[in-house]
Amino acid sequence: MSASDRIAPTLRVALVGATGAVGTVMLRLLRSRALSASEIVPFASPRSVGRELDGGLVVQPLDDETIQGFDVALFSAGATRSREWARRFVDAGAVVVDNSSAFRMADEVPLVVSEVNPEALGSHGGIVANPNCTTMVAMLPLKALHDEFALVSMVATSYQAAGGAGQSGIDELAAQVGPLAADVQQLCDDGAAAAAKVEHSVHHATLAFNVVPLLGALGEDGHTDEERKLRDESRKILGIPDLAVSPLCVRVPVMVGHGVAVRATFAREVDLARALEVLAAFPGMVLDDVPTPLQYAGRDEVAVGRVRRDLADPRTLNFFVVGDNLLKGAALNTVQLAEALVQRGLLRSSRPADRASAA
Amino acid sequence: MSASDRIAPTLRVALVGATGAVGTVMLRLLRSRALSASEIVPFASPRSVGRELDGGLVVQPLDDETIQGFDVALFSAGATRSREWARRFVDAGAVVVDNSSAFRMADEVPLVVSEVNPEALGSHGGIVANPNCTTMVAMLPLKALHDEFALVSMVATSYQAAGGAGQSGIDELAAQVGPLAADVQQLCDDGAAAAAKVEHSVHHATLAFNVVPLLGALGEDGHTDEERKLRDESRKILGIPDLAVSPLCVRVPVMVGHGVAVRATFAREVDLARALEVLAAFPGMVLDDVPTPLQYAGRDEVAVGRVRRDLADPRTLNFFVVGDNLLKGAALNTVQLAEALVQRGLLRSSRPADRASAA
Repeated sequence: MSASDRIAPTLRVALVGATGAVGTVMLRLLRSRALSASEIVPFASPRSVGRELDGGLVVQPLDDETIQGFDVALFSAGATRSREWARRFVDAGAVVVDNSSAFRMADEVPLVVSEVNPEALGSHGGIVANPNCTTMVAMLPLKALHDEFALVSMVATSYQAAGGAGQSGIDELAAQVGPLAADVQQLCDDGAAAAAKVEHSVHHATLAFNVVPLLGALGEDGHTDEERKLRDESRKILGIPDLAVSPLCVRVPVMVGHGVAVRATFAREVDLARALEVLAAFPGMVLDDVPTPLQYAGRDEVAVGRVRRDLADPRTLNFFVVGDNLLKGAALNTVQLAEALVQRGLLRSSRPADRASAA
Repeated sequence: MSASDRIAPTLRVALVGATGAVGTVMLRLLRSRALSASEIVPFASPRSVGRELDGGLVVQPLDDETIQGFDVALFSAGATRSREWARRFVDAGAVVVDNSSAFRMADEVPLVVSEVNPEALGSHGGIVANPNCTTMVAMLPLKALHDEFALVSMVATSYQAAGGAGQSGIDELAAQVGPLAADVQQLCDDGAAAAAKVEHSVHHATLAFNVVPLLGALGEDGHTDEERKLRDESRKILGIPDLAVSPLCVRVPVMVGHGVAVRATFAREVDLARALEVLAAFPGMVLDDVPTPLQYAGRDEVAVGRVRRDLADPRTLNFFVVGDNLLKGAALNTVQLAEALVQRGLLRSSRPADRASAA
């Protein structure tokens, strides 16, 4: 197969982590959207190799032979797998769009939300990173407002779904609901006893009928890696290196759909009517008076609402934003980045210099 | 019965709203705590009159005869009932501790958290107000820190339990859980369809497996009355008239137990070790690395954790605080205020001047 055969619409796509919560959605999107991959090859961990997925595709093992000849490789198999295999796909000629945290903060790796900073794709060196799901959801309204009022700082307080921890996060919550719901009075009178009736290992504490203000690993400054991602990735995506971010990440008993309460402070005074205009006009986003995560589970759009000027500061706007963490928060943006790479002629297989170096 | 007979330990207590979620807890506390009421008379709405409560007390109707001769009347029957009956109890010689929003912002009515500003009780003119449950929970750590560092502003983002809307709020959530939990995949793939399977009238939207960033009535400034309470009551309780507050109130699918994410900015730089010291020493509060509402449902203490210096501002401290909204958030503080009124000799029946004017 020659390089010219492999550019869209005859596009070979590798999907690494095809059996996970995000990978499953990616596979569906690859088939239903405009990308028109001519071939999709699913990869997963050894225990899933040989498994037949919906639509008849068979999970392949990762090895030097199987990773050859791809235009694009979409990774959603965790940072360890990405560190081990992404460069090898690149060396074999593919551009990798990676949904893990492995490369997000590397200087040479663009970190891109498709509606927010697609121009950053142009500088890729083989790998493009997909942001953290919570950061992603917040970026759309913040970019719309930043372009108008110049963002200076933000307080971001999250309401993150169990599905943000993958299928095992959903399964753990689902398993807890029945035993706890069976005794509502105990949930009211002796919550500790109720919480102790069920197991937890994915989430930091019993999540059913609870909220858990810790996810990820706690660092010495009292913030988790998840919270530092919210700061560092926001700075990189929005191109505001000194953006002040006060983050808190909280897990809530929702299956799919992240919410973020944002208090955003700008260099210029905020005109509410103008803010609503730019929010409504931004691609991939809708305005909704009271957006809830459940209402947007399964939907592509991010929804923003409860938009209000701060009670104290005329340069500050507050809002609540929700988005499906598996779609825009992960799989959809990854596939959109692959589409943008094709449309912008940024695949290595479509660039003569890259073709030469990969040959 | 003469006035001197009616001071503690021979204390006649009226409980208005005795059959509600908060009233039920108040009755239990009145019996179990040190107040030692010699007689408790439960009142409730006409449809509950004559009903026998746990322990054999029979619900009485509110009328000119039945409201005579009380030392203390605890109200938790909504603002309308309080506006109609509180003054009449006062005119009959009682001090009213009111858990509704009816009198909280009235200048002549002390608004009191028992550990935070008990000295305000001294100026009561017959009515003392119990703060909103969300505000209450946040006041303990804020007071501890304010005394040390001088509070200037705060961002307060809530995670409020269904039980904050009373028993009907709990019942509505409980009724939604089964139908939605029966199809977890639908919760992930088509949340709007899942949400539409169940009814809601207490909460603004389907609450099971969701979070709802609206509770209360929305005003023209884009904030709800619940959010304005958080600002206005905090100012009054802490005695900081110009405290800047950025509030957001969100309902979460928890039965009992409110959480509040607080970002508090002070006049002085925050020393973290000292902050932890003053928090640990404050009465009615415990430090817990990761406090969750479920863990503290049924417990008297408010718990504060995730205490961390702000990533951007050395004068700012962030924390997460939880508390049982029916206990410290409502019934417990009400009963504690009654106890403080007795201990401080502030009942009208124990003050000669009040006795004369009530005679």
